[in-house]
Amino acid sequence: MKKIIIIGGGAAGAKAAAKAKRENKSNIVELYTKDSEVSCSLCGLPYYIEGSVRDINDLIIRRPQDFVNNGIQVFLNHEATQIFPEQNSILISNNHIFYDELILALGANVSVPEIINIDAKNIFTLRSLDDGVNIRRKMQQSKTVVVVGAGLIAIELIEAFLTNGLNVIVVEAKDRFVSDFDRDFSEIIGKEILKKAQSRIQTYFSTTIVRFKVDEQNTFKGAVLSNGEEIFADFCVLSTGIKPNIELAQKSGIKIGSTGAINVDNKMRTNYDNIFAAGDCAQKYCIITKQSTYIGLGSIANKEGRIAAINASSTGKLEVFDGILNSVVTRFFDCSISRVGLTKEYADTLQEKINIVPVEVVITKKDKAGYMPNSNNITLKLVADKRSGELLGAQAIGELSSTLKRINTIASSLKSKMTVDGLLHLDLPYAPPFSSSIDPIITAAYKLKDLLNK
Amino acid sequence: MKKIIIIGGGAAGAKAAAKAKRENKSNIVELYTKDSEVSCSLCGLPYYIEGSVRDINDLIIRRPQDFVNNGIQVFLNHEATQIFPEQNSILISNNHIFYDELILALGANVSVPEIINIDAKNIFTLRSLDDGVNIRRKMQQSKTVVVVGAGLIAIELIEAFLTNGLNVIVVEAKDRFVSDFDRDFSEIIGKEILKKAQSRIQTYFSTTIVRFKVDEQNTFKGAVLSNGEEIFADFCVLSTGIKPNIELAQKSGIKIGSTGAINVDNKMRTNYDNIFAAGDCAQKYCIITKQSTYIGLGSIANKEGRIAAINASSTGKLEVFDGILNSVVTRFFDCSISRVGLTKEYADTLQEKINIVPVEVVITKKDKAGYMPNSNNITLKLVADKRSGELLGAQAIGELSSTLKRINTIASSLKSKMTVDGLLHLDLPYAPPFSSSIDPIITAAYKLKDLLNK
Repeated sequence: MKKIIIIGGGAAGAKAAAKAKRENKSNIVELYTKDSEVSCSLCGLPYYIEGSVRDINDLIIRRPQDFVNNGIQVFLNHEATQIFPEQNSILISNNHIFYDELILALGANVSVPEIINIDAKNIFTLRSLDDGVNIRRKMQQSKTVVVVGAGLIAIELIEAFLTNGLNVIVVEAKDRFVSDFDRDFSEIIGKEILKKAQSRIQTYFSTTIVRFKVDEQNTFKGAVLSNGEEIFADFCVLSTGIKPNIELAQKSGIKIGSTGAINVDNKMRTNYDNIFAAGDCAQKYCIITKQSTYIGLGSIANKEGRIAAINASSTGKLEVFDGILNSVVTRFFDCSISRVGLTKEYADTLQEKINIVPVEVVITKKDKAGYMPNSNNITLKLVADKRSGELLGAQAIGELSSTLKRINTIASSLKSKMTVDGLLHLDLPYAPPFSSSIDPIITAAYKLKDLLNK
Repeated sequence: MKKIIIIGGGAAGAKAAAKAKRENKSNIVELYTKDSEVSCSLCGLPYYIEGSVRDINDLIIRRPQDFVNNGIQVFLNHEATQIFPEQNSILISNNHIFYDELILALGANVSVPEIINIDAKNIFTLRSLDDGVNIRRKMQQSKTVVVVGAGLIAIELIEAFLTNGLNVIVVEAKDRFVSDFDRDFSEIIGKEILKKAQSRIQTYFSTTIVRFKVDEQNTFKGAVLSNGEEIFADFCVLSTGIKPNIELAQKSGIKIGSTGAINVDNKMRTNYDNIFAAGDCAQKYCIITKQSTYIGLGSIANKEGRIAAINASSTGKLEVFDGILNSVVTRFFDCSISRVGLTKEYADTLQEKINIVPVEVVITKKDKAGYMPNSNNITLKLVADKRSGELLGAQAIGELSSTLKRINTIASSLKSKMTVDGLLHLDLPYAPPFSSSIDPIITAAYKLKDLLNK
């Protein structure tokens, strides 16, 4: 029996609490969060704003009572302010709490740029249910919104705003939408966005905001851009990426990794054996590059929370988390864009560091048998190492159902370090409503094989 | 430079011809077929009958002229009747043709049961464009059809007939629909079929046809069943599985394998080094069981035709075909059912032969974030070997887009002999419109892990 304290009630914390209790019913499991809810799906917020999720409460996956019913104590509105690792205690809302094992699931926050007047009214970030409610309410009284950022979450927000009839002004420091995809892919999605938005989107790339314009009540009115232009809108949403919440760890002597997130080993342990970190506050390990990396995703947080709980509960052998593959997907109207592993651009930067010679192929073909009435184009890129023949990554853009059946497949292939030779014989299920008889993956693998043979 | 003769113009033959020429432009490549077309998608026929493919000619993937344009000679309506392996010649429409390399892509035919009056008018099989046209024409003048068989192709035909307003009588020797899925899965699809068909389907399982009833013109009128009942309908389609076309090979001294298909090694060679076989006439090798098996699928035929062509053209090292995974998928209205690898029932029969202890888990959960308006249930089964922890197979049934993204993933995992431990950390792309944050695959893997630990 152990007393396991979990700090944070997001995906990692909620999963860790449930699992820690399930591992050993006699464990004392306590979850503390500074927030007034636990276990919410923040990834669902854009769909609430859009209106396809009707009730904000639908995004609450589990309520405090659900935890209590399983014997887990939940403390809402309790902020942890200092850990004393040597004493196995933590200061929470001015109370010293002892623990046997501590799991930090502190989450992340929006990485807010330093801009004059950033604290003005009607400038929002999207990181809580309240944020979602406030943005949706404001949206319903507005005609024009400024979205700062053009990454995957920004795209989801842009769709939500367009669906609700707004004009959207996008300001992005990088030179294109979703710049963590290769340029050719981000250009395809960029064109798709401009097509869907028609005249209702205005984009400022390679542009930053110098200062927000506010009225006497410190209410957002617009912004002055780095190119000298001024823009005007009813409100603004900052979708400028996330940064891990590390303050508590940092000031308590817990090591921070090179990516700025809490350093953990493959058992989710920090530099203290009985302090674990999981989810958006923790650094990740990329299976392909064997390097540290950082990404915040509920799917990863769940896996890490589970491992942290298993290991916190364990008195013997610890479980290892294999690491991540940089998998992402997003929807934009009837289009989906997804990637896994390394982009070609990113792989190119790693050539010497991890000793690879990245090559790529891009194909566009029908995602189903060409004669089927609902067949559409899918564009698929495979990236591989010319030296070893191993796959390094993939990107796909196409109709909603067409990309993930390919990218998921490649994810599994990447996990097992499959070579192009392995991939090109892959026996994928085939019927005309689902694929062409030579699946786009196989077509791309053939082409890649030719390239590797050169 | 070699003279490469290909017999058969289906998926394997057409692919082999194109690839043989592409491998070496100076190759003489000749394709002979007894049929009047080449390169047709037979898998598309149910969708032509249904009406979603409007023009039967859309199912012609490449025309003879397309081959000629690439320097490949095509001989339609030319039947090969005897091979003389010792002389490197083949008798085709009474002409002796010499070859350096011969690729047999003889295809398969419907395995027609021996039933009295089976040759009657209005009893159809589905194996050519003409068959498709004839069935569709007859369907449009009919009210009731008998479908003999209840496998995946039968299901596609049933959908086509229901969509066109017919009543359908199914007669199947086995005790259920799609009996090559595990019973629990075939029962789910069975219920789905009955629900969709409402009162317009009548099923006779564990039942065979004793004799067809015909009128004086030898026209189908109905059938007498093994249970003594008589059924009446306007026409009948036999969807009773396929058997490989092996007559030419068999009488020419080419070895037939234990499955009844032409025996080939992993380079697609028969017992003669310069005679290859590919596609539906050739025996398959299952990667998981390491046993011979048989299945006819355009996706496999394409891969095998390619390998046969590469090896027929080669003067050096030959390419190896890894084998198959028994992957299949089909659509039934808005539902898809798919499997890969071994079913639990099949794995159980192999326990001693391949030294496995099969275990299974079945989960049903939402295929997307539960709060998304278009989320639906998916039921997923994983089968694994308790001894090694390796995956053995998977089955899934769910909404159209939900099953393949899981089964494709497992296909890749099976190919690389992934264990359950590998699968449960798999970093699959996640966003609410596409998956739950814990993908059904991961949920099933967790459950399987618990089972393996017991």
